[in-house]
Amino acid sequence: MAWTRQILRVNLTKGTCTSEPLNMEWAMDYLGSRGLASKYLVEEIDPKVDPLSADNKLIMATGPMTGTIASTGGRYTVVTKGPLTGAIACSNSGGYFGAEMKFAGWDMIIFEGKSSKPVYLMVENDKAELRDASHLWGTSTWHTEEQIKKENQDPQIRISSIGKAGENQVLFSCVVNDLHRAAGRSGVGAVMGSKNLKAVAIRGTKGVGNVENPAEFQKVTAEKKQILAENAVTGEGLPTYGTQVLMNVINEMGALPTRNHKDVAFESANDISAEAMAKPRESDGKAHLVTNQACFGCTIACGRISKIDKDHFSVVQKPQYHGASGGLEYEAAWALGAANGVKDLEALQYANLICNEQGMDPISFGATIGAVMEMYENGTLDEKKIGVKAPFGSAEALCELVDMTANGEGFGVEIGLGSKRLCEKYGQPELSMSVKGQEFPAYDSRGIQGMGLTYATSNRGACHLRSYTVASEVLGIPVKTDPLTTEGKPGLVMAFQDATAAFDASGLCIFTSFAWGLGDIQPQIDAACEGDWSEAKLQEVGERIWNMEKLFNLKAGFTKEDDQLPKRLTTEPAKEGPAKGLVAGVPEMLPEYYEIRGWDKEGVPTAEKLKSLGL
Amino acid sequence: MAWTRQILRVNLTKGTCTSEPLNMEWAMDYLGSRGLASKYLVEEIDPKVDPLSADNKLIMATGPMTGTIASTGGRYTVVTKGPLTGAIACSNSGGYFGAEMKFAGWDMIIFEGKSSKPVYLMVENDKAELRDASHLWGTSTWHTEEQIKKENQDPQIRISSIGKAGENQVLFSCVVNDLHRAAGRSGVGAVMGSKNLKAVAIRGTKGVGNVENPAEFQKVTAEKKQILAENAVTGEGLPTYGTQVLMNVINEMGALPTRNHKDVAFESANDISAEAMAKPRESDGKAHLVTNQACFGCTIACGRISKIDKDHFSVVQKPQYHGASGGLEYEAAWALGAANGVKDLEALQYANLICNEQGMDPISFGATIGAVMEMYENGTLDEKKIGVKAPFGSAEALCELVDMTANGEGFGVEIGLGSKRLCEKYGQPELSMSVKGQEFPAYDSRGIQGMGLTYATSNRGACHLRSYTVASEVLGIPVKTDPLTTEGKPGLVMAFQDATAAFDASGLCIFTSFAWGLGDIQPQIDAACEGDWSEAKLQEVGERIWNMEKLFNLKAGFTKEDDQLPKRLTTEPAKEGPAKGLVAGVPEMLPEYYEIRGWDKEGVPTAEKLKSLGL
Repeated sequence: MAWTRQILRVNLTKGTCTSEPLNMEWAMDYLGSRGLASKYLVEEIDPKVDPLSADNKLIMATGPMTGTIASTGGRYTVVTKGPLTGAIACSNSGGYFGAEMKFAGWDMIIFEGKSSKPVYLMVENDKAELRDASHLWGTSTWHTEEQIKKENQDPQIRISSIGKAGENQVLFSCVVNDLHRAAGRSGVGAVMGSKNLKAVAIRGTKGVGNVENPAEFQKVTAEKKQILAENAVTGEGLPTYGTQVLMNVINEMGALPTRNHKDVAFESANDISAEAMAKPRESDGKAHLVTNQACFGCTIACGRISKIDKDHFSVVQKPQYHGASGGLEYEAAWALGAANGVKDLEALQYANLICNEQGMDPISFGATIGAVMEMYENGTLDEKKIGVKAPFGSAEALCELVDMTANGEGFGVEIGLGSKRLCEKYGQPELSMSVKGQEFPAYDSRGIQGMGLTYATSNRGACHLRSYTVASEVLGIPVKTDPLTTEGKPGLVMAFQDATAAFDASGLCIFTSFAWGLGDIQPQIDAACEGDWSEAKLQEVGERIWNMEKLFNLKAGFTKEDDQLPKRLTTEPAKEGPAKGLVAGVPEMLPEYYEIRGWDKEGVPTAEKLKSLGL
Repeated sequence: MAWTRQILRVNLTKGTCTSEPLNMEWAMDYLGSRGLASKYLVEEIDPKVDPLSADNKLIMATGPMTGTIASTGGRYTVVTKGPLTGAIACSNSGGYFGAEMKFAGWDMIIFEGKSSKPVYLMVENDKAELRDASHLWGTSTWHTEEQIKKENQDPQIRISSIGKAGENQVLFSCVVNDLHRAAGRSGVGAVMGSKNLKAVAIRGTKGVGNVENPAEFQKVTAEKKQILAENAVTGEGLPTYGTQVLMNVINEMGALPTRNHKDVAFESANDISAEAMAKPRESDGKAHLVTNQACFGCTIACGRISKIDKDHFSVVQKPQYHGASGGLEYEAAWALGAANGVKDLEALQYANLICNEQGMDPISFGATIGAVMEMYENGTLDEKKIGVKAPFGSAEALCELVDMTANGEGFGVEIGLGSKRLCEKYGQPELSMSVKGQEFPAYDSRGIQGMGLTYATSNRGACHLRSYTVASEVLGIPVKTDPLTTEGKPGLVMAFQDATAAFDASGLCIFTSFAWGLGDIQPQIDAACEGDWSEAKLQEVGERIWNMEKLFNLKAGFTKEDDQLPKRLTTEPAKEGPAKGLVAGVPEMLPEYYEIRGWDKEGVPTAEKLKSLGL
């Protein structure tokens, strides 16, 4: 089985918790996690629903591999209609919460309705109940975790919660578990906040004792762990350097979006790189980086933990914060740093810490600050409006604004709308570096052409985790392709999109895909799960998920016009580096992409395609 | 396999950590945990070694079932020569530490030598290193856990540590893990302290992916979990009421040792019972009991968490303590309460909390206080000597003395020697209610005859966990026997001793034996482990372990004279209840016990017996 075959349905309006059997027909078609939870969402809500209304639903879901002995089997997803984008949203997180949900006996938890007062859900194996969370409202995710463990006298409880950003319905707020892990993008935390759901606390002691073919599963998971251990990226690069190893690499290839994408390289990239994090500081001889950290059952251990130099940090007037926190990961270091020209590593770590504590996506936050800084520099916004001088490069502005945004104070309320709404409000919609309202991550689509198409077509708005063509275009995985050409990229993007959807649906971490292909997860899934899980079937599951997500968005009102990049990327060429003179070639790739997807010229799946996928 | 086949050897004198392969021949004969670690100890140390010298060793060991999906597979043991007894010591603990050791890839960790300064061992999967612990020395186990997690920025680390009692070499100090779980008896914490080893911190992410026959293992563990769920004790009694359910039961049968065993029933037993813990207090309407709590992978969840009423607690002048802590478990409630006539539940919880925080065995501590109180009442000790008035029933004396003992202050230093040395020092050796220097647990051997023989013959000194005949004599498991008769008890004790040794060696919790026999653990072990593990073989493993332990003690200098109860129990009849007029019948049972054990009249295993066991 590997599925527990049980769903917990929590009606926040009525205050009820009920158990129901998992729809196994759907499980056979959508596997689990992102796939299966999205299927439930699509079946249960109107795509036109207001994401922050009681009619939206929020689903926390494990995959069949979650909680098993497969490496990285610790993931869970949060699926809902995203308030930042208005599109279907699925954010994925590691840590220990997902495995604990599985150990308690639940494949997923579906939240519906809205509570009249702040509550948290407490799950102990079969038992589930909603409890008052008035005393937790207005506090950080860190305090919430600590307090729930304390008041239940059980440090073993695993907790996912929102901070003040989610309560304040910051549109890029996230759901944080195990202090440093987050279902980060598309504002899933704001949906929790809109439902007055502060946290989900789980204690499970049942284990996963129902894989289909245990002997084969044990054998094949051991073999596949060995592949991870021997791979240069998963066995050495990620554990030793973390994702931050990319900072100098991407900068040198002229694909590091800088100052709201005005530039493609950051002159101070090295100051905010993995190398800088590991280097002993002059002030106290200690390195910023404390250690790396693994999630449940992970044999890669890419996570970073770092600590602010409190003396240095007095420059940004926040001496009270000098603890350690998760990160910096590459995406956060880029978004808080290069995206707005800030080179102060301590300031980035401070802003990142507030994002962890108060539950905000550092990518969208940092990229929105980039837009604010550009509007400050072009005179649209001033110090009086913002509350602080905010030129590109200002560490002080970054640190002030992260507090204001999390706390819902002053101009922070407007930042909390995300760059699209903010730039539209001030008459400069073209300055929002986003697709479908979601800000770009850390790869410039002029220097890595495949990423442009990835961003434009991602069903959850601009995202690198929906088809990480960087693997092919930069690292040569599974084959090296030229990052500067658009040729062949539509097929590459589609293949990555569908494979990623299958990885996500399994409950495994997408980082394994640096070493594993579908052919490596296939025997693990096949051994764990009932049914016949061939590689072709997984490919089809991935494509089915992608098309299902697309259909939801079309019904929600999205059109071909929403599959475009901001004009800066398609009209302002890269100023330097290997991509000098190039713009993002999305307009020329998009028709081919639609065609090979089996979609019409408007990007609508054909009846034939839908039929072939059983949609 | 189920074993990781790897041992970590830590030489504290040299500061080295080295890996070596597990001796699989020994694993086939001794299974794991208590059995296998004791085999290593027996092979590696001189039985006459001073337990607190650098020549003693201390082994932390998992069993092959530790960390698997079998219910209660979370146990680990601490094996050493015990300083309280001078006998072989093996203390067993639950929580999460044992599973984490397995997940990191280690069957056991052998500590040898002595560090010149306080250190802690940090293990992260394959990596192990000794680190300075000067800043942790002089602090509690709770602070130590918190601090190590904090300074490594990893709340997932699992820690076993000693408190001030272990540092001060209190002879009944224990090793505490996961805040509330302890390798409790025989002073194993003092051995850690003597080696300047403050803590062992482990992070493991490898999982257990090597059981021999995974399909069979999955099937049979699920079946056996169902047996636990349906059993009246493991499925209802323990989760609902905890071990404390025994307080009124044992009291009513006149087998609750009271006031240093002067009485066999405690008039205030109900005030310190499970019922009292669950009842809302008059002062604040809240119950003492907060919740129950399970260890890793446990489907029973017997543990209790309780909270002191801080207002009430001002009567014992310790208003600073009003937090929650593990317990009260039956043994602690008895030893801190009935054993010295104290009926103040809040005071018992306070003393128990200090035992958790500072790492002391509440059984030996409480029973030693009983001896102190008797010597106070008979005029041997006075207020000036003790530092406090200490008549039977004084909650204030209990709370003062628990602090003094943990901190090594004043008369507390003498209490820290245990009742045997203390009573000998003051010329009243007959007042120590102990065997081999270790204090009795909560069953009077005049009212439950089998327990007398259990205590007298236990290889680690008086102990209920070496053959819990209460199961048969009180609960009727597996068959009901008359607690007042000695007839048939030698055979019963031997059967329980050997079966218990096999349970302990597996890495499973002995509490499963309320529902499971060897016939239930056999298929689980056989499916998990290489080799042919029949029920007969497990029986033999148990008997082999028992005889090996016995041989160690004989070589250490123990004789038949050490297999005796204190004369109070064999000469002063029970004053009331069903056992009124009875004394403990150990003298009449012992020869028969020796005989069926295949030992000579002096209690020495015959050459024939040893040969049959391969010893």
